[in-house]
Amino acid sequence: MPSGLTPTSTSGATPGRPHEEPTLDLLIDDADADRYAELIERASTGLRLHRTDTASDCDIALGQPDRVAARMRAGARFRWVQSTWAGVAPLVAADLRRDYLLTGLGGVFGAAIAEYVLAYLLHFDQQMIARQQAQQQRSWRPLLPRRLGDRRVVVLGTGSIGGAVIKTLASFGCAVTGINRTGTDPGQLAERQRVRVLPIDALRDELVRHDTLVSTLPDTAATQGLLDATVLAALPTGAVFINVGRGSVVDEAALVNVLRSGRLAAAILDVTATEPLPAAHPFWTLPQVFLTYHCAGPSRPDEIAPVFIANLERYRNGQPLLHTVDFSRGY
Amino acid sequence: MPSGLTPTSTSGATPGRPHEEPTLDLLIDDADADRYAELIERASTGLRLHRTDTASDCDIALGQPDRVAARMRAGARFRWVQSTWAGVAPLVAADLRRDYLLTGLGGVFGAAIAEYVLAYLLHFDQQMIARQQAQQQRSWRPLLPRRLGDRRVVVLGTGSIGGAVIKTLASFGCAVTGINRTGTDPGQLAERQRVRVLPIDALRDELVRHDTLVSTLPDTAATQGLLDATVLAALPTGAVFINVGRGSVVDEAALVNVLRSGRLAAAILDVTATEPLPAAHPFWTLPQVFLTYHCAGPSRPDEIAPVFIANLERYRNGQPLLHTVDFSRGY
Repeated sequence: MPSGLTPTSTSGATPGRPHEEPTLDLLIDDADADRYAELIERASTGLRLHRTDTASDCDIALGQPDRVAARMRAGARFRWVQSTWAGVAPLVAADLRRDYLLTGLGGVFGAAIAEYVLAYLLHFDQQMIARQQAQQQRSWRPLLPRRLGDRRVVVLGTGSIGGAVIKTLASFGCAVTGINRTGTDPGQLAERQRVRVLPIDALRDELVRHDTLVSTLPDTAATQGLLDATVLAALPTGAVFINVGRGSVVDEAALVNVLRSGRLAAAILDVTATEPLPAAHPFWTLPQVFLTYHCAGPSRPDEIAPVFIANLERYRNGQPLLHTVDFSRGY
Repeated sequence: MPSGLTPTSTSGATPGRPHEEPTLDLLIDDADADRYAELIERASTGLRLHRTDTASDCDIALGQPDRVAARMRAGARFRWVQSTWAGVAPLVAADLRRDYLLTGLGGVFGAAIAEYVLAYLLHFDQQMIARQQAQQQRSWRPLLPRRLGDRRVVVLGTGSIGGAVIKTLASFGCAVTGINRTGTDPGQLAERQRVRVLPIDALRDELVRHDTLVSTLPDTAATQGLLDATVLAALPTGAVFINVGRGSVVDEAALVNVLRSGRLAAAILDVTATEPLPAAHPFWTLPQVFLTYHCAGPSRPDEIAPVFIANLERYRNGQPLLHTVDFSRGY
């Protein structure tokens, strides 16, 4: 056991495990630490769990990238860090060491974020606001829905989240263009009807022919400010923009200008460059902006603990870990 | 050609059709009559199309049940009537003759109505109203979404509309109990995970264990007032009720009482017993009521004309028609 640590619990070795295997120390640092500890105890991993605030040299850390990064700045060293967030940008900061394994999450947030995207597109397609106004006026006013399948959507990013969004929209008949760095289809997305995967170079030309843009892009050196005035200008009048990736991808001053011009029907922003959004930011009051406070893809310990436990098995067996972050790409 | 009719157009016999086949007269009586006429002309059906207001004895009528019923009351007789609405109740009225073939629509409205149901459930699951209020207060307040798959839904009616709703909800992981008269699964619905089909006798006992009720039931003698105070009392606190069938299924006074008691989270009513809803009706102002003015499943000529044309082929060949209404059941 590393010095300076007080174990909050000790599971001991699992009976079936070879007794010569060294016991590993796990630091849990997350707002949901209690729940993670409970789930890991229940899985009989044989890990020694730690939750102290003392800088430590546990073998493994499981937690929020911001908290783990702070520990590393205070001198902690880990052999493996499992993030409990989809975005790992705080751990890819230039001043932090990179001589360890960093794993993210795959397949955990896709379904929730696909529901979020669907919810807000349907909100507009069903004319919910106009229907509510008609009700306030006691006016029986049939406001016909637009069918979801009439939308033409660009989805930026084709990872596990972008892929889930693409699959869900395609299942309702939408025309979907997935865009990533290289244009390589990461897994039979384009086998679906009306789905294509194109490289980032095609972005501006494609936006002209679509009415909906969904960004699932992470915060990396390559994505910062990608959606600038020039790119946003390619979106047609009445288009809807949804950001479920990271706020740094958007040139927010440019987006404010486009919104003020009235050209976009709506911007649904789960994320912003600075979070919480500063009180003076124009996003709060622009009528086309829908803020949702970074909760489109909530980190659910029940869904994330199994990813960690599966990776732990691989770690112990010397196998490559799942969802390993490439520090040079940043995701 | 029947007397008293002025043909608006004459397509003549289609070249490939045997010349001895009699030319049939079709009356089109619908708000979208122009569009239907155009689509039928384009299909080269060889029908003689009529649109006069004169009472007629065309062979076939294609139109809105309310309009066709009025013509029948004025003396018109048809051999076959193809409804352009999902609900044919006006044509099943006791004073009207039943010595002809009446066909409804199958598979046309299911997808649109499934999107409508999804839209409103997601509206609540995403806490859209609370998020909007937070924005008005400039308060960064993460309001986590509920996942759609956490819902337990009773779907009343397992025809083409109820079936489409069940399939869509099941694809998001919801537990769904479909309920119809006999409990017979009409087509592999219950092969899906977490889907069951039960008879109407089970309704009250089942509602207790669900948090969402979707009615797709038509207006028939057996469904009128089915959702009365006793049945509504079985819904748990916080439940959501969606009516995309017909308003006559609901005891509206009972529903108003349940809503005033605060027990239901929401009633999303696409249909009401009287339409348009009278100006004095409490539904207009109850905060939990969402009115949508009977447009969840719009009649789209582009989708309905092919159903008529397919049935016309069967009619000419002496085959049984699709979606034939059983006058004794009323659908």
